[in-house]
Amino acid sequence: MAWREGYIAVDWGTTNRRAYAVREDGRVLESFRDDLGLLAVPRGGFEAAVAAIRDRLGDRPMLLAGMVGSNLGWREAPYVPCPAGGEELARAILWIEPGRTGIVPGVSQRGEAGAGVMRGEETQILGAVAAGMVPGDGLVCHPGTHSKWILLANGRIQSFRTMMTGELFSLLQKHSILSGQLGGEVEIDGSFRRGLAEGLAGSALLSALFAIRARHLLGEGDGNAAAYTSGLLIGSDVRAGLSLHADGPVALIGRPDLCDFYAAAVVEAGRPATRADGAEAFLAGIGTLTEMLE
Amino acid sequence: MAWREGYIAVDWGTTNRRAYAVREDGRVLESFRDDLGLLAVPRGGFEAAVAAIRDRLGDRPMLLAGMVGSNLGWREAPYVPCPAGGEELARAILWIEPGRTGIVPGVSQRGEAGAGVMRGEETQILGAVAAGMVPGDGLVCHPGTHSKWILLANGRIQSFRTMMTGELFSLLQKHSILSGQLGGEVEIDGSFRRGLAEGLAGSALLSALFAIRARHLLGEGDGNAAAYTSGLLIGSDVRAGLSLHADGPVALIGRPDLCDFYAAAVVEAGRPATRADGAEAFLAGIGTLTEMLE
Repeated sequence: MAWREGYIAVDWGTTNRRAYAVREDGRVLESFRDDLGLLAVPRGGFEAAVAAIRDRLGDRPMLLAGMVGSNLGWREAPYVPCPAGGEELARAILWIEPGRTGIVPGVSQRGEAGAGVMRGEETQILGAVAAGMVPGDGLVCHPGTHSKWILLANGRIQSFRTMMTGELFSLLQKHSILSGQLGGEVEIDGSFRRGLAEGLAGSALLSALFAIRARHLLGEGDGNAAAYTSGLLIGSDVRAGLSLHADGPVALIGRPDLCDFYAAAVVEAGRPATRADGAEAFLAGIGTLTEMLE
Repeated sequence: MAWREGYIAVDWGTTNRRAYAVREDGRVLESFRDDLGLLAVPRGGFEAAVAAIRDRLGDRPMLLAGMVGSNLGWREAPYVPCPAGGEELARAILWIEPGRTGIVPGVSQRGEAGAGVMRGEETQILGAVAAGMVPGDGLVCHPGTHSKWILLANGRIQSFRTMMTGELFSLLQKHSILSGQLGGEVEIDGSFRRGLAEGLAGSALLSALFAIRARHLLGEGDGNAAAYTSGLLIGSDVRAGLSLHADGPVALIGRPDLCDFYAAAVVEAGRPATRADGAEAFLAGIGTLTEMLE
């Protein structure tokens, strides 16, 4: 099909999705975001859900990326092993209908660098590189429920590491002995910065977490315990992430609010941080892939 | 009252309790354990629950220790600040009925060593020292939902640190993306030892935890993921705990099954481990306190 005449790009995650109609010159004609993440799609319901996207955004060829290609999604698009760049991804697109509806694969890592998987971030990262938003060599951080640290070389994903940071915060907030203390809004305040300093210094998480409870019981209020805890976990995350590349800037790609927290941590650790919007990077990534299809 | 004529000792935790009738020479006449932890006692129900213990074990003076003295328990017995030994604890017993029914206070820590609280462990630790089960100087570890590392000096609790190890394992097992993988029995097997090595080496927990998921998705089975995860967390715990005292043995006090896991970790880290049974240590602790009451 004629990708140059325009297409639809869908970033389809576990709990949300975002779809864009993109015109022949790359401009977004129309887009929407809703909570029809893949867990909300009934079994066998993806064909209908995709038809509904076309009803809304036009009858165009479509590329989908993210968890929609996982074993919990529509169909499993096997991971591309790293090192991986745009060409490897384009070649490995899982075509539901050839040339018309395809799922972008995720990227995997095996061996000495440790096991790793990503789905969705690869499209943003390679898009950000293609669009010149981040350099093709160096360290990238993609914050999220499972934050990623990626080493780029020659514009390709060389290796990466995933941290359970966002999920652990959520577990602590919802189910732990700290639940009652973690209801506050997370902001970059004094509490966040105290937590950040602890995390960046390499404090043992298991001990620093319980101390939050102890201070509370002893009336040694910490200000905003949610912000402190978030700072602690992000500091620990960034300390480990920075160890992947000894110097130079960190290119943050993702949700602007999360990039704020991570940028504060990276700068606190004495490294420069640049930022790229995840949604723009995603569009650039899908655009790059479509160019390889013709 | 005449403590020398015998007494009742109750270790009353959040979800379980254990009560002992102790005869004048220190021997246990009778004991029981049930799940009437303090969360199972209705509001205002402690008097009746204690009367029922006396119905069962005899009308003797009684000392209670553990979370029963917390703000979730019967009455709050204010923490004794460390350094604290048996005499400080005995002086600070909260008497519900003077000389007849008392709650042993917990121990707190403030200041540079970091905020900390314990309730119940102090009785076991000081009992183990008094009974010669552990030396009065050096490093003690009390494994549990919230494991404790305690520095003893001259038989008193000098300082301590708490780790959220057991609780974090439970959170991961019940509520995380790893839940489906963590159903196995935790044993000291090859998987446990691989996790232990990672944890003792100081691997970033946030990253090592997600790698468990990635290996699963990539079919790089880890054997027993529950044992690996437990080993990882205990290794991280022990690494931080050992840093409190540069050398010498670690005296483990607590549940024998948990002491097994921690002993494996301590030995793997190149330090000798000794062991004391928590229930015996508890009885020795209450016995020591009763001697100070007369």
